[in-house]
Amino acid sequence: MNRLLGLPASRGSALGRARVRLPHVQDIGEKRVAANAVEHELERLHRATDAARQEMRELRTRLQGALPAEVGEFLELHAMLLDDPELLTALDELVRSKRYSASHALRIQRDRLAQVFEGMEDAYLKSRMDDLDHVIGRIQSFLHKRTTTMKGLAGEILVCENVAPSELAQLQSQGVVGIVSSAGSVLSHSAILARSLHMPLVVAANAVLQKVSDGDVLILDGGSGEIVVDPGPDDLRQYRLRQRELAREQRELGRLRAKPTRTLDGAEITLLANAESHDDVAQAHALGARGLGLYRTEFLFMQRNQLPDEEEQFHVYRDTVLGMSGRPVTIRTLDLGADKADRTGLVLSSEENPALGLRGVRLSLARPKVSDTQLRAILRASGYGPLRILIPMLTTREEIMAVRRRLSRLTAILRNDGHEVAENIPVGAMIEVPAAAIALETFIDQVDFLSIGTNDLVQYLLAADRNNDAVAELYSPLHPAVLWLLRQVIETAQRHDTPVAVCGEMAGDARMTALLLALGLTEFSLHPATLLEVRRAIREVDLGALRQQAPQLLAARDRRGIERWITTTAGS
Amino acid sequence: MNRLLGLPASRGSALGRARVRLPHVQDIGEKRVAANAVEHELERLHRATDAARQEMRELRTRLQGALPAEVGEFLELHAMLLDDPELLTALDELVRSKRYSASHALRIQRDRLAQVFEGMEDAYLKSRMDDLDHVIGRIQSFLHKRTTTMKGLAGEILVCENVAPSELAQLQSQGVVGIVSSAGSVLSHSAILARSLHMPLVVAANAVLQKVSDGDVLILDGGSGEIVVDPGPDDLRQYRLRQRELAREQRELGRLRAKPTRTLDGAEITLLANAESHDDVAQAHALGARGLGLYRTEFLFMQRNQLPDEEEQFHVYRDTVLGMSGRPVTIRTLDLGADKADRTGLVLSSEENPALGLRGVRLSLARPKVSDTQLRAILRASGYGPLRILIPMLTTREEIMAVRRRLSRLTAILRNDGHEVAENIPVGAMIEVPAAAIALETFIDQVDFLSIGTNDLVQYLLAADRNNDAVAELYSPLHPAVLWLLRQVIETAQRHDTPVAVCGEMAGDARMTALLLALGLTEFSLHPATLLEVRRAIREVDLGALRQQAPQLLAARDRRGIERWITTTAGS
Repeated sequence: MNRLLGLPASRGSALGRARVRLPHVQDIGEKRVAANAVEHELERLHRATDAARQEMRELRTRLQGALPAEVGEFLELHAMLLDDPELLTALDELVRSKRYSASHALRIQRDRLAQVFEGMEDAYLKSRMDDLDHVIGRIQSFLHKRTTTMKGLAGEILVCENVAPSELAQLQSQGVVGIVSSAGSVLSHSAILARSLHMPLVVAANAVLQKVSDGDVLILDGGSGEIVVDPGPDDLRQYRLRQRELAREQRELGRLRAKPTRTLDGAEITLLANAESHDDVAQAHALGARGLGLYRTEFLFMQRNQLPDEEEQFHVYRDTVLGMSGRPVTIRTLDLGADKADRTGLVLSSEENPALGLRGVRLSLARPKVSDTQLRAILRASGYGPLRILIPMLTTREEIMAVRRRLSRLTAILRNDGHEVAENIPVGAMIEVPAAAIALETFIDQVDFLSIGTNDLVQYLLAADRNNDAVAELYSPLHPAVLWLLRQVIETAQRHDTPVAVCGEMAGDARMTALLLALGLTEFSLHPATLLEVRRAIREVDLGALRQQAPQLLAARDRRGIERWITTTAGS
Repeated sequence: MNRLLGLPASRGSALGRARVRLPHVQDIGEKRVAANAVEHELERLHRATDAARQEMRELRTRLQGALPAEVGEFLELHAMLLDDPELLTALDELVRSKRYSASHALRIQRDRLAQVFEGMEDAYLKSRMDDLDHVIGRIQSFLHKRTTTMKGLAGEILVCENVAPSELAQLQSQGVVGIVSSAGSVLSHSAILARSLHMPLVVAANAVLQKVSDGDVLILDGGSGEIVVDPGPDDLRQYRLRQRELAREQRELGRLRAKPTRTLDGAEITLLANAESHDDVAQAHALGARGLGLYRTEFLFMQRNQLPDEEEQFHVYRDTVLGMSGRPVTIRTLDLGADKADRTGLVLSSEENPALGLRGVRLSLARPKVSDTQLRAILRASGYGPLRILIPMLTTREEIMAVRRRLSRLTAILRNDGHEVAENIPVGAMIEVPAAAIALETFIDQVDFLSIGTNDLVQYLLAADRNNDAVAELYSPLHPAVLWLLRQVIETAQRHDTPVAVCGEMAGDARMTALLLALGLTEFSLHPATLLEVRRAIREVDLGALRQQAPQLLAARDRRGIERWITTTAGS
């Protein structure tokens, strides 16, 4: 039996076998690996070769119906190259004797063969180099994939160097019950996501990769950071007690359903819900959300070949308004971009940087018929209860004015046709493009409310794709620029008496609650699953005292300084 | 003979035949085209089908060496589908009789066939649907390409609705001598680029698409905005006079080589050059640039399979320092990202948004060996003349501190090995990530100078890819947020006595000179080709008067307001 301690990053405890994932020992561009990493490197090489082989085989199977059977054999040419013992032996040799990285070995062997091919007279053979390049390219691409797919993880605890934000949901769906990483931080994007997924996580457990082997039985406590390897009877009893305690805590949290969202010193804070499904709406209603702060409409447009027509959309929006029985529903107009699955042909498929492309209100303004259909459906739903319209990706004053003009015209047409449309429907803007946050003063007279989309805002401010694991360390709301800009937006909005909420992941993370309150925020929009935890966090703080600590928070020069503020001030 | 007037967007005049490019009559997602656009739409459909057919053929040719000859025939299956008269006739019919757009017709016909396939018993035939989808997908993708390649443009004047920034350089290399567009603005990204390429451009010539036909002879005056269709003898004489006048102007500009860069009221402004080739360096030297403000090093890493070693880099950097004979050379460390061609394996190839990925200093910190090789070469070159080091894509205080630590360590090692390394080499940061611009105060104590990369800064602030034609209208430095942030960075830098330059395209555009001076800028870094024009613009303004106009500039709420300031205040 053995005990290890890391930092508690996401509550909950887990009991299961360990699945150890060794870190890559070197980066692309690095040429050699350490002597003790040679075996691991060979394994990586073989895994990547296997994956490429498997891919070729699947391709062949997929094409089998389309092409006569005998053609399939020729398509195996590439797969044959992958089985060529000369090639494979040479690669192994380069890794084993020269300690080349798998990637470098591939490059060296490719160049060797290129020289051989160059010297050939036969044009046919010469052209085979293209095939070789293709095959080697595929192996390289599998080598560079950070996550090698792991199978049969159900009930297991993943032990790794670091877990990427992009793989968390998949790991959960594969049945992983907890994660320990030797590196990482409790306020990373991964940790925020783990908390919203309720996946127990311990980070910075330094020695875990050395002390835990594949198959070891572990108990993981995401609340204390403790890891027990090969637990004894006492540990198992402790675990059961802890599980019971967590269940009790959960029940206590449940009692907060009926409680007001009020700080110790009596300040009322508004909690709104983010939603896109019936379940979300029902849950938001049941937990006492003051309304929907963000109702996403993309699901209506995804995974289908035809655009939804006005009637279909109208019914969905109307039912959502009815489902919140009089509490306001904030419908965000279509926020599709090339990063989201789309088969309707609505979105450009060829953008090199879809996150910086024709998305959100830009797409709506470029496709007026599609947009008008949605706006008509929303306007008609406004007859059934309080409703607000939220415009995504706003960048310029011109855009919000264009949307307002369209809304006026459509309202007049609808009324003329005998439809009921509410008076003065509030129109708000997502603040997620940095230019809109900075130049808020230039268009705030044109909006009735604001919703800060911190997920995208942080991504653009830091020029770091939030889904790119290679910059996962950089992507963080805990950058001074993010806090300063949040403060500035909140202050500007309050000066103009314009309601402002935060609707990004930050809003749903109880560890960020004190920070957001210190910055002056009084409205949160979050997924119902995290509503009670945030309500509890709000009920445990003294808002006056917290606001007095804001100057220290805004004086922090780097992430560590901000994390220190959170740890000491919020005491979490 | 006929005269038209547009707005003069890029000086120079041209005489040539017109090449008319009709605009796409509808957008993706729009279903029908106007009656008079049906023929054009059919032509688009046929062109896209031809392109897809051509692509299939090329694929087959490329694979011919790799696969036995008889296999090629089976690969023609897809090409056969593209020749299927039933499919083609049905598509034409949908466009002709129903006025469907080509894109919509493809979708409708696809769905019709899908229903037929669905009903089939035979699994083999059923699976053919995949092939059909593939083929239709290829046609759609060719349909949505904005620029259909135009051939034989040499000596011609392009007449179009709008020209995209991304196609300007290609059009010039194809021999286009001038461009007229019916839409567009004189301060768009395209217009800025046209000016830096010295490509005559007239924009907003409303009726040009109606009044000019393919093959008409035109005279275009990018200085006045005038277009003469089918010119007479007088016009031709005028044209020759104008050409002579331009040549004289060019000679006058040449006299500014030896002149100081000083405003009317005696303020000295510093002009530095952006460079990456020997020619650039020689030209910068000859035109009296005060030094190189931005020496790019990416060219050493692109278009090759092996990374450059320390010796190769050292020689290049040393020769550049020597080439500027004592004027400072600012070497920017590697700013590669997945958006740039790279065959060395250094850059991740799989990023979904390369502009928001592992690039600039992020890549350098992630690949310490590659970065150390470059830094060693730069440090060694510092023995030969004044040199500064510029760090691209800085986002956090931690990054600049990490770079400084590496530089100290490498300097100690090099000196220990007997190399000469200058004392106190200035280390500066590119300000191009919004978070760095906003939080400049948090790390300004760690930098010796700053260079504002407006090209990327604008891209991130507006969340608009500068190479994406679909958001070309949005991408503009003339957004209040850009100006406010520029002002803030310049002020903060001046308060800390830290030199600050702008090195983006803005700096080299004489129409932006007054604006940048009004914002407080005193250092410009620009391509040598535009140096004299900017020097002239500087010599024509009164800096004191200009700075008094700054409040009006900063009060503009939208692009039009800023453009009005430029037009009235700068009188350009």
